[in-house]
Amino acid sequence: MPEDADPDPEQQVISTLTAGRPLPDGVVGPGDDAAVLADGTVLVADAMVQGVHWDARSTPEQVGRKLVAVNGSDIAACGARATWALLSLCLPAPVDPEWVERFAAGLHSALTVPLLGGDTTRTSGPIVASLSMGGRLAGPPLLRSGAAPSQDLWVSGRLGQAADGFHGEGPLGPLVDPRPPLELGPTLAARGLATAAMDLSDGLSADLPRLCRASCVGAVVDTVPTDTTLERALGFGDDYELLFAALPEHRSAIEELPFELTRIGHTTPEGPIRLPASTTGWRHF
Amino acid sequence: MPEDADPDPEQQVISTLTAGRPLPDGVVGPGDDAAVLADGTVLVADAMVQGVHWDARSTPEQVGRKLVAVNGSDIAACGARATWALLSLCLPAPVDPEWVERFAAGLHSALTVPLLGGDTTRTSGPIVASLSMGGRLAGPPLLRSGAAPSQDLWVSGRLGQAADGFHGEGPLGPLVDPRPPLELGPTLAARGLATAAMDLSDGLSADLPRLCRASCVGAVVDTVPTDTTLERALGFGDDYELLFAALPEHRSAIEELPFELTRIGHTTPEGPIRLPASTTGWRHF
Repeated sequence: MPEDADPDPEQQVISTLTAGRPLPDGVVGPGDDAAVLADGTVLVADAMVQGVHWDARSTPEQVGRKLVAVNGSDIAACGARATWALLSLCLPAPVDPEWVERFAAGLHSALTVPLLGGDTTRTSGPIVASLSMGGRLAGPPLLRSGAAPSQDLWVSGRLGQAADGFHGEGPLGPLVDPRPPLELGPTLAARGLATAAMDLSDGLSADLPRLCRASCVGAVVDTVPTDTTLERALGFGDDYELLFAALPEHRSAIEELPFELTRIGHTTPEGPIRLPASTTGWRHF
Repeated sequence: MPEDADPDPEQQVISTLTAGRPLPDGVVGPGDDAAVLADGTVLVADAMVQGVHWDARSTPEQVGRKLVAVNGSDIAACGARATWALLSLCLPAPVDPEWVERFAAGLHSALTVPLLGGDTTRTSGPIVASLSMGGRLAGPPLLRSGAAPSQDLWVSGRLGQAADGFHGEGPLGPLVDPRPPLELGPTLAARGLATAAMDLSDGLSADLPRLCRASCVGAVVDTVPTDTTLERALGFGDDYELLFAALPEHRSAIEELPFELTRIGHTTPEGPIRLPASTTGWRHF
């Protein structure tokens, strides 16, 4: 494995599936939050597995809502708004009609676009719900690769709330029913206010290095908006907030946006990524 | 359940997921082989589950190929050609890198379009591979609902080969590595030769009633192209051949197409669907 490769086993499987497969001109493919076609179509697919992505603490309605939220978050992180959805649902036999009805109610309460189709199938294992969504760019795409040195780094919301919920030390809502800021990405794209973006699904300490690798930059993070420990704010994930880079000249325009946004630090020439850490002062990656 | 509803439990789940959800004008949604957007985009999603859709008789390469074939068959049945694919892959831990490599090799050997993204995730159960594909219509869409009485019914290929393979009485190829006639649907659509179409995934005895219900017609089937028993030809499925309706005036144009095609019968005014049956002469649905 090359020294700068992503150590996440999921990324290694993706690499096996996609390595050495050239893409058509103008197409952004695997490795970003979403695929982006030359005509401005954005495509995502994200699955949730019972026992892995949710447990008995989630109602079926919340599972349906979260499935839409995690896919919608990826669409939004590229600067797009969703246009359609397809569902693949694997259910153990015998089918529990009440679970399906409640899941469908949650799904549709979060979907702002039509569910155009998909399929359902039987499984001997846990429920697997896989959603695909399409969207349209609101401006030039916000990719992970667009940042350059000496740009501001921003995040939306407050990190670590899902972690607190998971540990029973905060409300469960952020964990089981996340509400990504779906309008933030398209707003930044339409107004040309960001150079790069991605959503925080694995935690800032895993996701920021991905943005930095894609952009060939380093980073210094001075502050993290959180009401919990730095460990939970940086390392747990499931925040579904937006991380983005922007030119310093856009600070005031960004501060005026109707979202909770924190300037957490800045990019540097390619090099280490420095995060605040409660024990060592800095954690080096 | 209304008397004319599809008795398949899968169809009941789909009904729960989609009932009462209006679609935008010009959009064909759940219930056909694919969703069709007003701009000519076609969308499908189909999952395969280890132990349900394949077993130890399939190599990982064949699983990858079949996943592309079943999705591509739905795209083609609407009269479209594929343009992109997204993959959601759920794998038990620890990941078997050899399985992933061989599956990816099979997938890409069958894909004629770029794999633009998707996700991979861990599961405690069997492998689940869910593919979404997009396509472009080659002409007016071929829907299940387009047939009228007194039209010809046609099928491609020879039915029941996958059934013979399953029962160990024929080559395994048609079962584990189906090759749908992907150019037939787009050719029919581009030349305006068919009024309705669908692919045969559940067998003619389950699929023909779906086309007839959608088109509000009955049907008489006089002959079925097969080298095995009628029971296997009609009832097993996994054929991935194309069933379509066409005007009698197009018979000679259809017979000249470079595909193996059989005129199996004709549509009637709304009423029973009569299939040849080896024991009773006719089987009524």
